[in-house]
Amino acid sequence: MGGVVMSENIHDLTIAYIGGGSRGWAWGLMRDLAAAEGIGGTVALYDIDQAAAGQNALIGNRLSRKTGASWTYRAEASLEGALGGADFVIISILPGTFAEMASDVHAPEAYGVYQSVGDSVGPGGVIRAMRTLPMYEVIAQAIERSCPDGWVINYTNPMAACVGCLYRVFPGIKAIGCCHEVFGAQHLLCEMLDVLEGVRAERCELETNVLGVNHYTVIDRASWRGLDLSGLIARFAERYWATGYTPPGQEDYRENPFTYAHRVKLDMYKRYGVLGAAGDRHLAEFFPNPWYLGSAENAASWTFGLTPVSWRIRDLEDRLARAGRLASGQEELDLTPTGEEGVKQIKALLGLTPGFVTNVNLPNSGQFAGMPGGAIVETNAYISKDSIKPIFSGSQPAALAAVTRRHCENQLAMSQAAALRDGKLAFEVFCNEPALGGLSMPDLRALFDTTTKNTAEYLKDWKF
Amino acid sequence: MGGVVMSENIHDLTIAYIGGGSRGWAWGLMRDLAAAEGIGGTVALYDIDQAAAGQNALIGNRLSRKTGASWTYRAEASLEGALGGADFVIISILPGTFAEMASDVHAPEAYGVYQSVGDSVGPGGVIRAMRTLPMYEVIAQAIERSCPDGWVINYTNPMAACVGCLYRVFPGIKAIGCCHEVFGAQHLLCEMLDVLEGVRAERCELETNVLGVNHYTVIDRASWRGLDLSGLIARFAERYWATGYTPPGQEDYRENPFTYAHRVKLDMYKRYGVLGAAGDRHLAEFFPNPWYLGSAENAASWTFGLTPVSWRIRDLEDRLARAGRLASGQEELDLTPTGEEGVKQIKALLGLTPGFVTNVNLPNSGQFAGMPGGAIVETNAYISKDSIKPIFSGSQPAALAAVTRRHCENQLAMSQAAALRDGKLAFEVFCNEPALGGLSMPDLRALFDTTTKNTAEYLKDWKF
Amino acid sequence: MGGVVMSENIHDLTIAYIGGGSRGWAWGLMRDLAAAEGIGGTVALYDIDQAAAGQNALIGNRLSRKTGASWTYRAEASLEGALGGADFVIISILPGTFAEMASDVHAPEAYGVYQSVGDSVGPGGVIRAMRTLPMYEVIAQAIERSCPDGWVINYTNPMAACVGCLYRVFPGIKAIGCCHEVFGAQHLLCEMLDVLEGVRAERCELETNVLGVNHYTVIDRASWRGLDLSGLIARFAERYWATGYTPPGQEDYRENPFTYAHRVKLDMYKRYGVLGAAGDRHLAEFFPNPWYLGSAENAASWTFGLTPVSWRIRDLEDRLARAGRLASGQEELDLTPTGEEGVKQIKALLGLTPGFVTNVNLPNSGQFAGMPGGAIVETNAYISKDSIKPIFSGSQPAALAAVTRRHCENQLAMSQAAALRDGKLAFEVFCNEPALGGLSMPDLRALFDTTTKNTAEYLKDWKF
Amino acid sequence: MGGVVMSENIHDLTIAYIGGGSRGWAWGLMRDLAAAEGIGGTVALYDIDQAAAGQNALIGNRLSRKTGASWTYRAEASLEGALGGADFVIISILPGTFAEMASDVHAPEAYGVYQSVGDSVGPGGVIRAMRTLPMYEVIAQAIERSCPDGWVINYTNPMAACVGCLYRVFPGIKAIGCCHEVFGAQHLLCEMLDVLEGVRAERCELETNVLGVNHYTVIDRASWRGLDLSGLIARFAERYWATGYTPPGQEDYRENPFTYAHRVKLDMYKRYGVLGAAGDRHLAEFFPNPWYLGSAENAASWTFGLTPVSWRIRDLEDRLARAGRLASGQEELDLTPTGEEGVKQIKALLGLTPGFVTNVNLPNSGQFAGMPGGAIVETNAYISKDSIKPIFSGSQPAALAAVTRRHCENQLAMSQAAALRDGKLAFEVFCNEPALGGLSMPDLRALFDTTTKNTAEYLKDWKF
Repeated sequence: MGGVVMSENIHDLTIAYIGGGSRGWAWGLMRDLAAAEGIGGTVALYDIDQAAAGQNALIGNRLSRKTGASWTYRAEASLEGALGGADFVIISILPGTFAEMASDVHAPEAYGVYQSVGDSVGPGGVIRAMRTLPMYEVIAQAIERSCPDGWVINYTNPMAACVGCLYRVFPGIKAIGCCHEVFGAQHLLCEMLDVLEGVRAERCELETNVLGVNHYTVIDRASWRGLDLSGLIARFAERYWATGYTPPGQEDYRENPFTYAHRVKLDMYKRYGVLGAAGDRHLAEFFPNPWYLGSAENAASWTFGLTPVSWRIRDLEDRLARAGRLASGQEELDLTPTGEEGVKQIKALLGLTPGFVTNVNLPNSGQFAGMPGGAIVETNAYISKDSIKPIFSGSQPAALAAVTRRHCENQLAMSQAAALRDGKLAFEVFCNEPALGGLSMPDLRALFDTTTKNTAEYLKDWKF
Repeated sequence: MGGVVMSENIHDLTIAYIGGGSRGWAWGLMRDLAAAEGIGGTVALYDIDQAAAGQNALIGNRLSRKTGASWTYRAEASLEGALGGADFVIISILPGTFAEMASDVHAPEAYGVYQSVGDSVGPGGVIRAMRTLPMYEVIAQAIERSCPDGWVINYTNPMAACVGCLYRVFPGIKAIGCCHEVFGAQHLLCEMLDVLEGVRAERCELETNVLGVNHYTVIDRASWRGLDLSGLIARFAERYWATGYTPPGQEDYRENPFTYAHRVKLDMYKRYGVLGAAGDRHLAEFFPNPWYLGSAENAASWTFGLTPVSWRIRDLEDRLARAGRLASGQEELDLTPTGEEGVKQIKALLGLTPGFVTNVNLPNSGQFAGMPGGAIVETNAYISKDSIKPIFSGSQPAALAAVTRRHCENQLAMSQAAALRDGKLAFEVFCNEPALGGLSMPDLRALFDTTTKNTAEYLKDWKF
Repeated sequence: MGGVVMSENIHDLTIAYIGGGSRGWAWGLMRDLAAAEGIGGTVALYDIDQAAAGQNALIGNRLSRKTGASWTYRAEASLEGALGGADFVIISILPGTFAEMASDVHAPEAYGVYQSVGDSVGPGGVIRAMRTLPMYEVIAQAIERSCPDGWVINYTNPMAACVGCLYRVFPGIKAIGCCHEVFGAQHLLCEMLDVLEGVRAERCELETNVLGVNHYTVIDRASWRGLDLSGLIARFAERYWATGYTPPGQEDYRENPFTYAHRVKLDMYKRYGVLGAAGDRHLAEFFPNPWYLGSAENAASWTFGLTPVSWRIRDLEDRLARAGRLASGQEELDLTPTGEEGVKQIKALLGLTPGFVTNVNLPNSGQFAGMPGGAIVETNAYISKDSIKPIFSGSQPAALAAVTRRHCENQLAMSQAAALRDGKLAFEVFCNEPALGGLSMPDLRALFDTTTKNTAEYLKDWKF
Repeated sequence: MGGVVMSENIHDLTIAYIGGGSRGWAWGLMRDLAAAEGIGGTVALYDIDQAAAGQNALIGNRLSRKTGASWTYRAEASLEGALGGADFVIISILPGTFAEMASDVHAPEAYGVYQSVGDSVGPGGVIRAMRTLPMYEVIAQAIERSCPDGWVINYTNPMAACVGCLYRVFPGIKAIGCCHEVFGAQHLLCEMLDVLEGVRAERCELETNVLGVNHYTVIDRASWRGLDLSGLIARFAERYWATGYTPPGQEDYRENPFTYAHRVKLDMYKRYGVLGAAGDRHLAEFFPNPWYLGSAENAASWTFGLTPVSWRIRDLEDRLARAGRLASGQEELDLTPTGEEGVKQIKALLGLTPGFVTNVNLPNSGQFAGMPGGAIVETNAYISKDSIKPIFSGSQPAALAAVTRRHCENQLAMSQAAALRDGKLAFEVFCNEPALGGLSMPDLRALFDTTTKNTAEYLKDWKF
């Protein structure tokens, strides 16, 4: 269908951006929108930090003026003000502050439980979900009232829990969760082709079958331009399992906590026969803590590092400073594409481009065999004019499926806990997290008490 | 992915064609293969009419010489000879002769039950399945032994029963059923755009969501170049429901029994809210007989005709004569593409072209919500390098789903009857066919006895 | 557990009787309550015919005085007045009057469709459901508000549709549907033992596995005092299939339309291998009309008769006269037990007697394999202290299951139609009824229009 | 049905006892058979220790002579010799010797993982399953050949894995798993009535709803003679959670490792709201090791002890000596009933007594909501003439269900591992055991290697 001329340009779109004061994702969206042909309209930025949203409106409008893009940015003081009549809703919020995140991530270290990210599962993921899901209830209700036909794209973590909450509160919602972590694994496949075959491949030339839960997805079948990659992956794992592989020019994971040398991915391949398809720092958190995260050294031996929240705080300071420069015009946003697919999805949903296949997070309606209906899973889907349909992905190998099913059950139990604000049930979910399977009951209790107390401001209506 | 250069040409393929003596489908495949770039190899033609297969080998090789296509055709005397090492298996057989088909189609007329085709469901479909499924058992066993990794494309009717039999006998088979009937509905959508909007559209520019059982599929959502077609379909139905619509230049259904003026499709739209997506002569057979097929006049009032087997016999005579001319070189095959997608699928499965979405018949693994697991259903699927994955289609409206479920239950019961050669169960399936819901028990018994007797040669191991 | 002394007597029960003005079922309940040891309290009678409820209160209290039973009867003017704090709710209403019933049952005769009862499925069942389910919505809402913990026993037809409505509106309801039709089949098993073996057996000595939909249930396994009855049933069917069997002393079906000679039951056994387990006049209605009900003669040849509504009208006149005599003391209720199990169930639910197994109508949570979740099915259940748990019944033979599944799908579609007051969907359910599979579309439309018009007073908020 | 006289006595039964050389279970069965009225016949004892089977035949026949029971015991040298024509098959074997069991139970202690029994789940359960399931394949095949219609009662552990293997190999088997552990929880309910209410209750007077996996079952609803026990259990837990409860006259768990003071049961009640319904020493093993079994002291603080295999070895010596005395007549078997229900089940299956409800282990066909189909689960069932039908038990509370689901997934993955002799998959099941969630990957590997090596004689055809 490559040559089809699709429908006319659309210049009266409304995009609501919840968390629109962000110093990062928001700028990326601005860049991608500025580069997008054929669409324009208004972006309504909502953030509890109204000043940040206002600053971003300045930055966005400055970019439009500079690039000639037909996008107007405005800050909205209320959630419903931003959502009213939105064609698309983007949600990317930071639930709480770095103070709460520091507790989520680092408090468990006192019990020998390290976390490389702490935003999806494990103690950090559970506590973050407890804080976040009540906010998502409010958002879902507002969407139902203000723009029930709008497409909703979620980027916030914990991804599966957040998307699940949207569907629980408003079952008719048209929401997906999007995440670029699978892209990283696809880039690694390109690296494999380069290293072992001397071939330069592009991610978009790959066909991959994707199945899992966000940040813990795997690829069980891959081809490049019609070439089956099974043998290539096996050879790569054989060669690099023991040492890991760092692409030329990439910073070492000891310097940049967002990098890694893929040993966890390859270990999953070796044990389960399928390639891990998220960053190693995410994948590691889904397994029993002593496997990859029993200590900082343990993580380092698996060639990935921990992301201390202090790092994030320093990083935010840099970004705050940059926001000031961008708003005042001292600095300008570069215009290279982000590599995210949000705008590509928007255009396909509008029917401006042909349908395409990519991985998304959706309630399981059967696309991930062996997992419970309604759990939010990550598989391929076909995205076309006003339609996102999951593609059947089959099932994971039995050994891995048993671990995955456990995460799905925890996800569904957490959803129930959040719906009822049932702290007792949330504690049991906490106790059932793979990362915490080595803790005694008194330690589990103490850790849960500490971490919920540290985020107590956000848990006021929970019953314990 | 339009611009991706895929893997190298492949010139050592083996395609086994079961029913390779056909005077019709086989020539179409030859034309499409001759036009296909980048692939070549051997086509092994097997047919119980060995002379016909031999004649077709002559015709195929003549075409290769003329076009420079790198395909060699050979006739094989045994099923396993043809299947050995096949990369692809095409099955397109006539189960029995026109004598049996004449009984299937016309014997029920004595009871007021008319059939426009008689090959899928209803009395003709049931008796044909009884005759055909034992043949398919033999084929499935041979595939398991001779080419278990080959992709199998079935064209024989009853489609759902045949594909179901392949999977029942050899669960690891890589088989799909392909049928062009949905294409016809897509062409009608293009006609709608032309008639009501003055727009010339191509079928390949449409996005349609397809869900049903073969020859009884519907489209519940369609867009063209990003334009939602819901309103267009509603207006078209409003205008043409009462009269039907015959495209300019098309023969009238009173002259050519393969044409029709779409009243059944539009009636389904009016009643169920979704557009019938097979030929009207097929669709009509899935409903209670008095609705559309209580008499030849009843059918005519719905703007479609019956296909008498006498017509088929005359038509075959013409085609036999033509076969002689083609084999001897007196006549040449034209080279216009057939519009079938078989070769397109083969190329995508080989990884020579990017993945694409089309409708296929596959066991339900959840893609058709509300229908039983394992029933053969028709939905979209994504076809790429050595992979065919169904796309979730959602569910039909409740009123239609109740009818469809009944066909699925009958299909599964027929599968069980065939596996056990259980004529008693086959009779009950017969009695449960919508087409026969108005017959008394003595009439049902008499009709079943007559029609099974007329095909008794093929039912020797059935127990009644 | 036969000898266990259960908990103390309970004398402060409240039973709400919806439809408490009934001249039949209500008196039966009074008799059974009067005979029940260990329980007493209040029975609140509610009826839209308040005078009838008042008269029944007189009759009930008179009976209590006479028998020394500790039950007080009172008529309640409002539904919620009756339900407030009820421990048990009995629902047995006549939805509409005999005028509507006459249309339900007899209007289809103009189209060759006869009905022996017309209250469950077929045209009569569909129209009756359309009239009844909105009333059941009101009842279910009132139960949720007034006595959400009470046990609800429904006797009204269409049974499956009514129980389904209760659960749809108030998913937390503790409701079952009870029906004595299975008992009749069990009595026939006792007859078989008598006739073929000269053994006098009691119904309560049988073990039977029951599975189906109300009024269309079957028994696939039966034993008496440990004796497997498979062979006995086979011999009985062999001997009596052709002629039917009328127990000594039973009125002929030509005189009493509630009797029959069991040919339909035996025909089901012969065809499907399982014994029909409801009255023949009910069973026959679940199959295509020409099989057993194409004419009054057709029914007679199957040894059952039609129940004309004129018969019911005459019968009601007799019962009205009797009500006067009972209220005034001119006549007294006899005290023989009714054979119904309602009071037995109440006592087991109260924990006054040990748990026991009987057949009930409940949402399918898996007890009837092969049928959709949530459809109301009839299987055995274990009833004990505040608990009713269905017993797994397995699946029906494939041929019968296909018919049964169709009824379940229609039931679920009718539930959706009623929830939305969607007359268009109701019409499609009507068209999909086995009884009407022989009608042309114009006839279906005309019959639906006639029968809905005849009950239009009750369908005011339906959209067509 | 207490008063029903059931069918005649049956004196020609054949019972095959696999593991018939047992010094314990076998004697119990002999006692119960000797006391059973109305049945007699032959018991065929098969054991790989033929001498032990022969000795037991002597003991059994001596008992028959003494009591006048009509049972003849004979030792059979071959499995099929014992099974030929058996009406009932009892399986109670020790898979391997105490040497292997010592490794299963004690080797993990080096890694801080203690086990109180080590026969169901955890490292001991997995290794024992690897050793046992190949034996069960042989037994299931022999049953299919020799007595496919016989009822099979399994007592061997790991219960769920063994019963699952029987059904995997011979899907038509009529097998249940029976275990008395639930009875212990029912006795505790009687104790609660005694201690808190001063009432003497009998187990058979209780109604309990049972749902779980063997040795890890719970009771979510209980009544005694119609009295709801919810409040009683809550008060008991309140009073005894901290200290545990030892019934008067019971040995302390520090002296007898088979006793315990119920703290684990009560802890489950406190956390999940349902009462643990197996011995505490079993229940504890299903949770993460540090909760109840991080050390012998940890266990002791939960008022249960470990059962060292040395204790079992001493105990066996006593029993061997006793076997000699019993065989020679120096000692006689006492005749008190064992409290097991095997003989009661046999009589009900024969139709000699009315149907009754008890807990059994069966493949999940829906009776345990939320758990996968086919997993072996423990719920109530209704046992009657040649029929065992599970009773719907509902679902466990979400928090507990997540743990239970994990065990079911491991069970199914272990079944697959055993079918394929896939040691790699078995290792992953091992790693996914809750008891081992605190171990590092090198420790897991080392422990698996050690324990499989210690039982290597039985794992010859496994691939690692």
